[in-house]
Amino acid sequence: MPKISVKGISMPESPIRKLVPFAEAAIKKGRKIYLLNIGQPDIKTPDVALDAVRNHNIEVLSYSHSAGFEGYRAKLAGYYQKNDIPVTGEEIIITTGGSEALLFAMSSIADAGDEIIIPEPFYANYNGFATASGVKIVPVESKIETDFALPPISEFEKLITPRTKAILICNPGNPTGYLYTKEEIKQLADLALKHDIFIVADEVYREFAYDGAQHFSIMSLTQLKDHAIMIDSVSKRYSMCGARIGCLVSKNKEVIAAVMKFAQARLSPPTFEQIASEAALETPQSYFDDVIEEYTSRRNLLIEGLKQIEGVKVAVPKGAFYCIAELPIDNADKFAKWLLEDFQLDNETVMVAPAAGFYSTPNTGMNQVRIAYVLKQENLKKAINILKVALKEYNK
Amino acid sequence: MPKISVKGISMPESPIRKLVPFAEAAIKKGRKIYLLNIGQPDIKTPDVALDAVRNHNIEVLSYSHSAGFEGYRAKLAGYYQKNDIPVTGEEIIITTGGSEALLFAMSSIADAGDEIIIPEPFYANYNGFATASGVKIVPVESKIETDFALPPISEFEKLITPRTKAILICNPGNPTGYLYTKEEIKQLADLALKHDIFIVADEVYREFAYDGAQHFSIMSLTQLKDHAIMIDSVSKRYSMCGARIGCLVSKNKEVIAAVMKFAQARLSPPTFEQIASEAALETPQSYFDDVIEEYTSRRNLLIEGLKQIEGVKVAVPKGAFYCIAELPIDNADKFAKWLLEDFQLDNETVMVAPAAGFYSTPNTGMNQVRIAYVLKQENLKKAINILKVALKEYNK
Repeated sequence: MPKISVKGISMPESPIRKLVPFAEAAIKKGRKIYLLNIGQPDIKTPDVALDAVRNHNIEVLSYSHSAGFEGYRAKLAGYYQKNDIPVTGEEIIITTGGSEALLFAMSSIADAGDEIIIPEPFYANYNGFATASGVKIVPVESKIETDFALPPISEFEKLITPRTKAILICNPGNPTGYLYTKEEIKQLADLALKHDIFIVADEVYREFAYDGAQHFSIMSLTQLKDHAIMIDSVSKRYSMCGARIGCLVSKNKEVIAAVMKFAQARLSPPTFEQIASEAALETPQSYFDDVIEEYTSRRNLLIEGLKQIEGVKVAVPKGAFYCIAELPIDNADKFAKWLLEDFQLDNETVMVAPAAGFYSTPNTGMNQVRIAYVLKQENLKKAINILKVALKEYNK
Repeated sequence: MPKISVKGISMPESPIRKLVPFAEAAIKKGRKIYLLNIGQPDIKTPDVALDAVRNHNIEVLSYSHSAGFEGYRAKLAGYYQKNDIPVTGEEIIITTGGSEALLFAMSSIADAGDEIIIPEPFYANYNGFATASGVKIVPVESKIETDFALPPISEFEKLITPRTKAILICNPGNPTGYLYTKEEIKQLADLALKHDIFIVADEVYREFAYDGAQHFSIMSLTQLKDHAIMIDSVSKRYSMCGARIGCLVSKNKEVIAAVMKFAQARLSPPTFEQIASEAALETPQSYFDDVIEEYTSRRNLLIEGLKQIEGVKVAVPKGAFYCIAELPIDNADKFAKWLLEDFQLDNETVMVAPAAGFYSTPNTGMNQVRIAYVLKQENLKKAINILKVALKEYNK
């Protein structure tokens, strides 16, 4: 029997997948599950995007440009310019999701054994992209007590070695919901320039900023011209997760040239979804206003609800649609499984994502969960109540 | 200025891309170019596929299953069973093009520095996937004199080392157009079993088999159950290159489990194109009959035409839609560039792909070109005539 590679064996399984068999078994028993575990928005995708695909006039579905439609890139540059990100279409490469942009970024700036510093807890799939690229993630811990603010720069600096190639942040953050301040971004910029390393910022949740707080992009700092690589996606912005369209943005021409070679190898990004994404740029501001209003209400409902549960500590998110809650339990993996296998309230239960899977450091976040507030408010209320009752019962 | 990785620097540029600026310049001069350089079919995509996308009823474009729609995989299994490939939906993972399937395969079976033996000339992007994965390609030369038949097994055996993880073939072949015989496939199977290595077969041109010759899949050999990984794509079969839908097929459960982890990391393949690809399975046999009839005529026209040009040696292809021709010139790169920059016949010229880019061994195939017969017959005739006149003029 031929062997799987070490890379294939050490490739992490998605931490969310582990619970899926238990969820499926619960559903078979007729259980209703409120899904707080995955960042799949329930918001309708803008009609302008869906209609553009309906009205396509393609006769031969041929390869498109390896960097994506020129017209789409140009329009996307217009969107960025409106967001204080002064880039042109040539500084953008359309990718198959933010996922591919991250893979291309890692492959272009880091060789096997090189290091990328990432504040944890971080988006679990960064582990997967790092393993696939042979890159080593060096975590720096952010704490629930600060709502997962940027760790002190001195903590980053301690971790810099000759193999450090970049710092990677997700802003606004998944799983923390933390929105980095302009000051924090500037601190990171100074550090990157001092050590001549890249800053990679995953900004896919850019629009999801609450309480009047403004998102600040690394691409807005002119001094970071050669050091900044921005990762973006249509997934959350337009509730188009299934489109698999994202992009890598950089003013560093060598980065773009290197990424282009990886893009050429896989030929081109998908066509219909580029059509949808280009059309999505016409989505009226009212769509985003409604979405932010809705998510703000959901966030408030969730945080208030969690704060009322005895023993629960919660980080208050100012961005994205996640929060981390520390629960009065021994082990979140056990608890999440118990919720699906053994608990029900009126034949209903909830599914949460144990946060340990978002930490690189072992045995960290063992009693934390990530909650995605992607449900309608009435369902969110029910879910919070279920959680409250469940915690009491679990601890008996 | 932070540095690009060694991987990023050594990532090969697509050999076809090098000539694009010269083509663009020629077009600016008003030149008409017959494109024989790239395997982008001109055949219409089946209406059933394009209409399925037009008639989509999606409201929330959400993530699909990491392995692709269950229904699509089940139907695809039905297609394979009709083609003597006895697989189930669980033995198929839908990928973003055959490109991603190749990347996933390489990553799952080979670690950095491991080796994969590939008959050359081979599809140039295998170099890119290998560089991206850190895998070393070990070429074994096939010759124009045999129409690029499988090299003797002894030649393969000489190259096997403790780091050899697989043999990769493209069948029918790009760029050679060679269709491996059942006997050749069995020889490879015996070798793979003897040394306990994988056979990876890129079978994306499966339907393109001429002269009544039958394609024989590695998946049809039950003894290869644990050793065979098949790569497929909708690109050529349905003229859907822009869909970016392919698949990895294997009866080896460990391979599927490893590949699933890479698939989970990038979440899912594109949605609309899965819809199109699932619908494409309903394409009537008449579509393929017409396509094969058309391509057979084109192939005959091309080969006859090339054989009539003095000094040209051509390998006669029994599959795919390419052929390799050895031209009476010093250097195909120079010649291909000259065709675009300096030559015109009634303000028309041709673009060919210099074959050196399809060889891993340096200074090999220096006077060979790959010609893709993806043009209508009247344009193919003109192109051949242009080539004939150009060769005379070049050699003055």
